[in-house]
Amino acid sequence: MIDVHKLLEELSTYSSGGPGTTRLAYSEEWRNARRVIIREMEQLGLAIREDSMGNLFGRMEGKGFVNHPIGIGSHIDTVPQGGNYDGMVGVVAALSVVEQLQAAGGTQRPVEIILFAAEESSRFSVATMGSKAVCGQANFSEWLKMKDKEGKLFEKVIQENGFDPAKLAETVHQPGEWTAFLELHIEQGPMLERAGENIGIVSAIAGATRIKIFIEGRADHSGATPMGERTDALVAAAGVILAVEEAALAERRYGTVATIGNVIVSPGVTNVIPGATELWLDLRGTNKESVSRTFQQIKKDIDGICNGRGCGGKIEMISSADPVEMNEGIIELLSECADEEKLKYRVMPSGAGHDAMCMAQLTPTGMIFIPCKEGISHNPDEYTSPEEIDRGIRVLKRAVERLASQ
Amino acid sequence: MIDVHKLLEELSTYSSGGPGTTRLAYSEEWRNARRVIIREMEQLGLAIREDSMGNLFGRMEGKGFVNHPIGIGSHIDTVPQGGNYDGMVGVVAALSVVEQLQAAGGTQRPVEIILFAAEESSRFSVATMGSKAVCGQANFSEWLKMKDKEGKLFEKVIQENGFDPAKLAETVHQPGEWTAFLELHIEQGPMLERAGENIGIVSAIAGATRIKIFIEGRADHSGATPMGERTDALVAAAGVILAVEEAALAERRYGTVATIGNVIVSPGVTNVIPGATELWLDLRGTNKESVSRTFQQIKKDIDGICNGRGCGGKIEMISSADPVEMNEGIIELLSECADEEKLKYRVMPSGAGHDAMCMAQLTPTGMIFIPCKEGISHNPDEYTSPEEIDRGIRVLKRAVERLASQ
Repeated sequence: MIDVHKLLEELSTYSSGGPGTTRLAYSEEWRNARRVIIREMEQLGLAIREDSMGNLFGRMEGKGFVNHPIGIGSHIDTVPQGGNYDGMVGVVAALSVVEQLQAAGGTQRPVEIILFAAEESSRFSVATMGSKAVCGQANFSEWLKMKDKEGKLFEKVIQENGFDPAKLAETVHQPGEWTAFLELHIEQGPMLERAGENIGIVSAIAGATRIKIFIEGRADHSGATPMGERTDALVAAAGVILAVEEAALAERRYGTVATIGNVIVSPGVTNVIPGATELWLDLRGTNKESVSRTFQQIKKDIDGICNGRGCGGKIEMISSADPVEMNEGIIELLSECADEEKLKYRVMPSGAGHDAMCMAQLTPTGMIFIPCKEGISHNPDEYTSPEEIDRGIRVLKRAVERLASQ
Repeated sequence: MIDVHKLLEELSTYSSGGPGTTRLAYSEEWRNARRVIIREMEQLGLAIREDSMGNLFGRMEGKGFVNHPIGIGSHIDTVPQGGNYDGMVGVVAALSVVEQLQAAGGTQRPVEIILFAAEESSRFSVATMGSKAVCGQANFSEWLKMKDKEGKLFEKVIQENGFDPAKLAETVHQPGEWTAFLELHIEQGPMLERAGENIGIVSAIAGATRIKIFIEGRADHSGATPMGERTDALVAAAGVILAVEEAALAERRYGTVATIGNVIVSPGVTNVIPGATELWLDLRGTNKESVSRTFQQIKKDIDGICNGRGCGGKIEMISSADPVEMNEGIIELLSECADEEKLKYRVMPSGAGHDAMCMAQLTPTGMIFIPCKEGISHNPDEYTSPEEIDRGIRVLKRAVERLASQ
């Protein structure tokens, strides 16, 4: 029988080093961890295929006449110095559920485990690339020209992984090909743990707006330029960083969040007053109006701060996505399953993006959250207990069983 | 006759590219620009020598019996994307002054042009390396182990330039070897231009304190972690950046300045709340008490901000230098020379560090500033007019003539 905890431990050994797990999409570590999943799929006797994005599918045939499987899965790539549960829990859970369903004599409809490629945006600054491709949201000609931080072309990267860039168009699926899609995932926030609840059933997934903010000041000698004579692009940026926090705090009751994840200072040396800065803003929420208000406030603040300091300020929209509602029928089904398992649950939004966002474009989709310690994620300290994982698997198994029963 | 403006233009062609001049110490561009100065020294018939740091000396013998020359000079390395005047003006001025003195029949005492190596801290994070070596302030065994941003050892770098690391100890000079030292330099600040004055006579050079500030927060998922549940190391850093500005503004009347020149965010990706930040602080002033007060205030602010946000904060002192007074007799002499040239001048402190700081440890030393446009320096827009340069050369020549006359 599959020991999901041993399997998680085995996956954690594929990391490029440093604290936590660093397993960027399409890296050697990723390929190696993916091979572990292929091995497990083979042991379950699943029909395995992969597409040119590197998405991996393992299918258990159904006993009935319906050809459209229940999809379950997640991803195994990580952010740099991330944890061992974000994504991986959903993949090992899917393997365990299929094994249990086989032991129980199989299901009417097929069940398909999906391992999506490049869910994290850490390598190419685009999130959920694999599932975006599957649901037809990819702009392949643009993607092929993208470079990672080392300047390596996406085209080259997937080629080196053995995937054919010329066949990317074949990765796209049509609505209705799956009967439904379910993803089990850690919450990546503190709500469930704090409330003492075991299961979160996702109502909607926040859309992420990604914006680069450019602030232009004047590079000057850091010793010879008196205070009050400076046009310091970093001091202006500091004002913007605080204003971003304040704008999102004001919309806190709607769950809107805003983060500056990086600052690039130019020239970035000790003895020169910063002449320019670039800030990376990530803005999310499930309430569109609140997100829009926050964005307007941030734009106003950038203008105000830059004008006040004699700096130039401009923004560049990198990507923007509307929030995605989960399927109501699935939410209801998952609630029933949690009830039947006698688990405390809540229906809640997801601030984080997931492959389920894309799958929701193709088929009725739902997500099951399990608590993680102190809400910590994207961090070496990310943790969820074997008990919580087992509870999640019980709900997932029950829901798949129900969906695949006819 | 040497055309200093053509010579400046020729030097400006040695840059690694991009806007402005990028000519890091010991780079190929630096070697090539240095060869131009050697060519000019040869044409003047000077006795040329260099030391293991790459400091270059060109000596015009005196007619008298005193062996101790008047030193004049500056540097030709630049910050990344710097200007074409910072340092270079003092070098071409020195060549012109020696040519004029030769034409006038020479001087009693010798005059020696010095081109100091690695004045800018841009490559190895240590400023005025060449003159530090000359005046015995270098820790060579530590320096040999330093690496530049590309990870190249200082030892390797000077070897590649043809300098012998084993002979570094021979670069050290003794007090009294020079009769005096004078450096002509652009102001790198706006005071002279604003006052409509032509000449600044430096009273003292600010000491620079360089500190790294480390702020520890908690990396979390940027979408799933609600506002108010975050320990964002960058938001705390933003508070510190603004507090540093405020602390220095409060000491503005003493000329104290404080700059955060760079921020390094970890992990520095779009979808993770910053878990740690590193800030590079440069703190300077000619008033020791004011600098110390500013530093105490900044430390207090770091503690207050970090405590208030649940972050860890600590500082690491990278280097610290007391302000250096220029020689009173030289200040008086330079004032007389400016008067005799009928130029408007002021005695003023220098916020920027210079090789003259080190030379002041060995011999009576002074500095002549000329205005630069809008005070801009360490910037591609750095500019000073041919007229201002010529005025500076007139004062320098007069002062050297006087010092070398007996």
